[in-house]
Amino acid sequence: MPDTDPTLEADVFSRHCSSRDTMQDITSRWGLLALAALHEGPYRFGALRRRVDGVSERMLSQTLQRLERDGLITRTVLEQIPPKVEYALTDLGRDMAVRLVGLIEFVESTLPTVTAARAEYDARGTAGI
Amino acid sequence: MPDTDPTLEADVFSRHCSSRDTMQDITSRWGLLALAALHEGPYRFGALRRRVDGVSERMLSQTLQRLERDGLITRTVLEQIPPKVEYALTDLGRDMAVRLVGLIEFVESTLPTVTAARAEYDARGTAGI
Repeated sequence: MPDTDPTLEADVFSRHCSSRDTMQDITSRWGLLALAALHEGPYRFGALRRRVDGVSERMLSQTLQRLERDGLITRTVLEQIPPKVEYALTDLGRDMAVRLVGLIEFVESTLPTVTAARAEYDARGTAGI
Repeated sequence: MPDTDPTLEADVFSRHCSSRDTMQDITSRWGLLALAALHEGPYRFGALRRRVDGVSERMLSQTLQRLERDGLITRTVLEQIPPKVEYALTDLGRDMAVRLVGLIEFVESTLPTVTAARAEYDARGTAGI
């Protein structure tokens, strides 16, 4: 993956800008839900997996690794028997999560409108047959 | 795809909630960029494809179809020779795009921090070898 040229301004429209990668990390199906869940507070792996309904262990693990690499979450091994791993947002992750939760709430609020639009579109599509 | 139970509240955390589909439509790599581009004003297909750097004709076409079905954009055939197709945001699409553009601008502004975090993470990873 090519690194960013620091003399260029970030531009998500440009295919080579690595802000696109970050955008994908935070808006991927699981990245988004993991950040939104961690916005509720720190989670251990198993509890986070139950919260993010439908994610596999492997996918959640990969997702968390990407978010940790981006500096959005921390991974702390708790010294106990058996050892537990806890995930939490960093300050940057919190700033990101606040915006994502806002977006999620907006999308949830539009669900009736979107559902109606889909039904209308599908009816239009079959009307011509 | 199962339709929503209208007696349930939208909950993107639930695997069966179709707000997850909308979320994916608007935050997919190309959905996001198409909405953000149309936030600048209406676009014809070819111009939109140039703006959304890197998208194939087929992918852009599929993306626009999903966004139209969700009621976020309109597709208008302009009566001229040769006929042209113009895409524009609906009111709902504009509300969505405003939020997405805000998110994009935030992500772009975090690029130096994220890039530094990645470098640190990668250095940590190899330090142990």
